[in-house]
Amino acid sequence: MNNEPHEPVTVVGLGRMGQALAGAFLKAGHPTTVWNRTASKADQLVAEGALLAPTVGDALKAGSLAIICVTDYEAMRELLGASDVDLAGTMLVNLTSGDSAQARETAHWAEQRGARYLDGAIMAVPPAIGTSEAVILHSGSRSDFETHRSTLDALGTLTYLGADHGLASLYDVAGLAMMWSILNAWLQGTAMLRTAGVDAATYAPFAQQIAAGVATWLPGYAEQIDNGSFPAEVSALETDARAMAHLIEESEAVGVNAELPRLLKAMADRSIAAGHGGEQYPVLIEEFSKPRND
Amino acid sequence: MNNEPHEPVTVVGLGRMGQALAGAFLKAGHPTTVWNRTASKADQLVAEGALLAPTVGDALKAGSLAIICVTDYEAMRELLGASDVDLAGTMLVNLTSGDSAQARETAHWAEQRGARYLDGAIMAVPPAIGTSEAVILHSGSRSDFETHRSTLDALGTLTYLGADHGLASLYDVAGLAMMWSILNAWLQGTAMLRTAGVDAATYAPFAQQIAAGVATWLPGYAEQIDNGSFPAEVSALETDARAMAHLIEESEAVGVNAELPRLLKAMADRSIAAGHGGEQYPVLIEEFSKPRND
Ligand SMILES: NC(=O)c1ccc[n+]([C@@H]2O[C@H](COP(=O)([O-])OP(=O)(O)OC[C@H]3O[C@@H](n4cnc5c(N)ncnc54)[C@H](OP(=O)(O)O)[C@@H]3O)[C@@H](O)[C@H]2O)c1
Ligand SMILES: NC(=O)c1ccc[n+]([C@@H]2O[C@H](COP(=O)([O-])OP(=O)(O)OC[C@H]3O[C@@H](n4cnc5c(N)ncnc54)[C@H](OP(=O)(O)O)[C@@H]3O)[C@@H](O)[C@H]2O)c1
Repeated sequence: MNNEPHEPVTVVGLGRMGQALAGAFLKAGHPTTVWNRTASKADQLVAEGALLAPTVGDALKAGSLAIICVTDYEAMRELLGASDVDLAGTMLVNLTSGDSAQARETAHWAEQRGARYLDGAIMAVPPAIGTSEAVILHSGSRSDFETHRSTLDALGTLTYLGADHGLASLYDVAGLAMMWSILNAWLQGTAMLRTAGVDAATYAPFAQQIAAGVATWLPGYAEQIDNGSFPAEVSALETDARAMAHLIEESEAVGVNAELPRLLKAMADRSIAAGHGGEQYPVLIEEFSKPRND
Repeated sequence: MNNEPHEPVTVVGLGRMGQALAGAFLKAGHPTTVWNRTASKADQLVAEGALLAPTVGDALKAGSLAIICVTDYEAMRELLGASDVDLAGTMLVNLTSGDSAQARETAHWAEQRGARYLDGAIMAVPPAIGTSEAVILHSGSRSDFETHRSTLDALGTLTYLGADHGLASLYDVAGLAMMWSILNAWLQGTAMLRTAGVDAATYAPFAQQIAAGVATWLPGYAEQIDNGSFPAEVSALETDARAMAHLIEESEAVGVNAELPRLLKAMADRSIAAGHGGEQYPVLIEEFSKPRND
């Protein structure tokens, strides 16, 4: 808790996420102005103390920090680009999901109109907003972030990633790729174990333990990538590839899907074909860094 | 530490792994008899106190527990199936890698010859053997496992999985699938972030944190699978699929490999096409449980 007066904030876009964001600001004691294309979505927030602005332009002028959270960047640009909206002097924090190129372009677009612009990505569902569970990533000017950090803290656990506005989107999708990959690997194992009568709840703690253990290797393996040198300190890629063949055979033998096992092996095989069979697993960064259309 | 006399053990197969296993038994104080097709691989162990048996048959008779660790099940069966080898009364612990069907067949084969048989799988590299880092999985008779547990403890951290001899192999490959999947997801993210000048060491702790967090969800998600009911408590599969499309577009836009993103989305799209778009992610177990040849 600090004793500073609460910064007045604006939230534009009151979908499921925008409502959660505005609700968290209200709960933290910030004077909160809201606006939404469909005004009725503000009703509950107004009952909780929010002020409903008549126009987007009025909403932006009401607070010293404006959060934008609409469907996508197109909607955001359409809304804020309208001729009657003056962005000069506003501090925009865009929590709309998009890609890194859109974030960089939109930063440039907003700055040309006299606004300051931070990009952000929300790695959380609406009910988690306002709790430490909600991971929120920010990128853009560090000093803008620091200036408004104590206000943004009301939304969740913040991480500042760097000046490049594209970083929040990149970390966001990279983190999601990790999430789905763990879930899929767990589903692959669960499907296999169920053929032997093992239920999902019995297998899950084992999968959890392996995942937590492997996660701790990443910083060490990252050093190999940054050094561009992949000595097989623990095991060689060709040993992994042989065990991947086992995984494919076992998946086929027990009659479950083998697409994930086959993709694992295809990537490793390509790296081995390129001469890296005697090196360690992170040498696959070379395959992951190359586009391949198939 | 217990005060029982150390059980005499036998290790058959002195490749990189067999040597580590015999070395750990010696270090723990077990009278250790060894045998290897190429006898010279026993030299170092003999210098450390191991006894080299002249034949496999003699080796098996020397201890009350015999570990077998050779290249594969074919080699194991060839070796122990020779006409001059008597398996009657032996307690075999097979730590050779193979698949679940081979483990079950070999258990049957060994039991028909009068042996007791435990299967096992080593989730560790040779230098980790003898430390708690070495995860060793066992399946087969629980009482045989309990009888010899204090001896096997010398090798690493033991997990008993159940009476079905195939379980050790299944958990082993499922755990490896988790390992490779986490590494690949991390490589995907690293490749993407490097296009924005972020080095692998900067991204790794973020990936580690996401992976550790997602791992904790698995037991809860397992309940959905065991109940066969997938309410979208946190998010719906079609929301995931939209974000997967972002991941594919972002991967293509920054010029990295997009095969992993495409496979993620293909599995989700199939489940959505089967009518599960409004359910939660673990509903994908239905896709993972079905073979698909492509
Ligand atoms: N929900 C989640 O779990 C979650 C998690 C992380 C990130 N996000 C991101 O948060 C953002 C918002 O998501 P949401 O769940 O709140 O979506 P939502 O419930 O579908 O709400 C969409 C919002 O965008 C507004 N909008 C769309 N097009 C517009 C336009 N052309 N002009 C003005 N307003 C427009 C809608 O206004 P109307 O009410 O008038 O239609 C509504 O306020 C998205 O980028 C999403 O990816 C969501
Ligand atoms: N190394 C690892 O990191 C690791 C990790 C987990 C599991 N494993 C598993 O452990 C097992 C052994 O691996 P390793 O690394 O020790 O392999 P390795 O160094 O290649 O040794 C293979 C062993 O098998 C013996 N062998 C092969 N064919 C034989 C036959 N027909 N008759 C008699 N002996 C035969 C070899 O005898 P010669 O010396 O006479 O050739 C040698 O002792 C494998 O199933 C492997 O998958 C290994």
